[in-house]
Amino acid sequence: MLKNDLLLKALRGENVPRPPVWMMRQAGRYLPDYLKLKKKYDFFERVQTPELATEITVMPVHQIGVDAAILFSDILVVPQAMGVEVLMEEGKGPSIPKTIRTQKDIDKLNTTEAVDHLQYVMNAVKLTKQELNDAVPLIGFAGAPWTLLCYLVEGKGSKTFDSARAFCYAHPQLADQLLQKITDVTIGYLSAKVKAGVDAVQIFDSWAALLGPDDYKRFSLNYINQIVDAIAPLAPVIVFPKGAGHALKEISYTKASAIGIDWCIDPKTVREITDNRVTLQGNFDPAKLLAPIPVIQKEVHQMIRSFGAQRYIANLGHGILPNVPADHAKAFVDSVKSYGNG
Amino acid sequence: MLKNDLLLKALRGENVPRPPVWMMRQAGRYLPDYLKLKKKYDFFERVQTPELATEITVMPVHQIGVDAAILFSDILVVPQAMGVEVLMEEGKGPSIPKTIRTQKDIDKLNTTEAVDHLQYVMNAVKLTKQELNDAVPLIGFAGAPWTLLCYLVEGKGSKTFDSARAFCYAHPQLADQLLQKITDVTIGYLSAKVKAGVDAVQIFDSWAALLGPDDYKRFSLNYINQIVDAIAPLAPVIVFPKGAGHALKEISYTKASAIGIDWCIDPKTVREITDNRVTLQGNFDPAKLLAPIPVIQKEVHQMIRSFGAQRYIANLGHGILPNVPADHAKAFVDSVKSYGNG
Repeated sequence: MLKNDLLLKALRGENVPRPPVWMMRQAGRYLPDYLKLKKKYDFFERVQTPELATEITVMPVHQIGVDAAILFSDILVVPQAMGVEVLMEEGKGPSIPKTIRTQKDIDKLNTTEAVDHLQYVMNAVKLTKQELNDAVPLIGFAGAPWTLLCYLVEGKGSKTFDSARAFCYAHPQLADQLLQKITDVTIGYLSAKVKAGVDAVQIFDSWAALLGPDDYKRFSLNYINQIVDAIAPLAPVIVFPKGAGHALKEISYTKASAIGIDWCIDPKTVREITDNRVTLQGNFDPAKLLAPIPVIQKEVHQMIRSFGAQRYIANLGHGILPNVPADHAKAFVDSVKSYGNG
Repeated sequence: MLKNDLLLKALRGENVPRPPVWMMRQAGRYLPDYLKLKKKYDFFERVQTPELATEITVMPVHQIGVDAAILFSDILVVPQAMGVEVLMEEGKGPSIPKTIRTQKDIDKLNTTEAVDHLQYVMNAVKLTKQELNDAVPLIGFAGAPWTLLCYLVEGKGSKTFDSARAFCYAHPQLADQLLQKITDVTIGYLSAKVKAGVDAVQIFDSWAALLGPDDYKRFSLNYINQIVDAIAPLAPVIVFPKGAGHALKEISYTKASAIGIDWCIDPKTVREITDNRVTLQGNFDPAKLLAPIPVIQKEVHQMIRSFGAQRYIANLGHGILPNVPADHAKAFVDSVKSYGNG
């Protein structure tokens, strides 16, 4: 039995004394103890070594006081397990030397053994659960197939992933094949993660904002929905379609338990659109954690008032920035905890 | 008298036999003749030499058949005229070696002579008007103060301009001073452009999507509205708040003649929000110009049906991509022209 099950209650739509709080990318980046590990081990060493991933995952639980842990990992471990070489250079972000753009590229992707190659993630989940000792729930995550396609086609990060979009429009059948392969592996991957012990999962569609409404349905939601249908019977699913306000209504009718919201849409508008059918999660502007602490406190309380304290998970609207002082991150979490007390 | 005044009619809300069409960034980038000039002259030489700016501006009128010219220039000429050093490296985008972040930085910005330093733009406007010989209208443009602040504070392009947002949240009074200075110069600059001969102006808020609704009002719309109020009596104003769907309703109640729309919002939704109070412009996904020509034709007609052919200016949802073949750009324009004929 979890000692703190606020997150799971909020995901189930049950009443809570205050909203649970966690922060996207809370494991790593801005934490001084993480930066020490970063100097000693390279990125995929940290991800692939269960002891390191566990140490990083539990840090914000102990140091910042969040109500949930999220396993330290990366969305690109899935294509990596499918046989795609992924490089992660410090300060440069990910790159994929051999992009996936042709029928031959897609045919070569390994779907049958991909989940086996991710056994290190399952080991990290088990070790983290032991380490957490039921203090708070553990969230597992995966990238949405569209967001992974962006990297696979473009080969690197981009503001607009023009090549990825052009690939979908010029070769929709190839895009569908690629998206379906990623979807199939992701379903196997997330199922295994739940079996290994995660209490909930989040699907990150970080590049959702790059497609128009019809293309988003065609190239992203179609595939996210398959994942939600497969995983929702096993564990609560949070879908984070960053920037795709047009998709919120449709997602609220799926089996997803919650929708993650970025900071560029008004909480009240989202409540209207989703009409309390799902829990909402978000949406503090990550750059606002660089404002003075009294500003953070004021704005966090304003955010909670706008969302309402029930069916709500306090979070950022995107990942925490690397240059946020740890005490500002803690002020964010503490402000949620103090909501309603003053 | 203009021979082709479709654009101005659409901006005034008058009936047109077919929608006018132009493309953001149509002057340059993808045109083979432009690429030849690019090899001979560096970026600011092209911008600051009226003969070159004119040659580039009229190219798409003659070669692609657009219904309006837009003066070849850059939004950063305004801060440059205020005394900020702006570098433009090929393939890297703009950078500002000395960012503007302190009271002292802001105090040093030159507002009184900035418009005088932009006389070369006025000369380019006059020469282009001669060259166009009333074939089509000429559009002038400026960056929205918020978008310019992004570059001035961040110092370079960015996916999310975290430093710029953090600057506004941590130092709102400094942000207001900087935004007001940019606004004042922009009003002088656009007034002078209209006086020199442009028939309409567009305000590019390229980074509108980075702020939440309240912060967008506070740090962007407040200033855009001052510009619209000052310029609308002189010439029709198009506001392009890229990605800020939440702001469309408010902008539709201002004196702006048209709102530019990106491709990530459904045209019918925008018509509902703005209720025919303004002309709409947009919103073809620029990456779709890389799809086969029959796909372009089909999707352009679909787009026009969604917007409706009146109070509408066909355009892309953002700037044309550099790797678009010129015949695909022409197919886009021709598809608009053939709308209703088949």
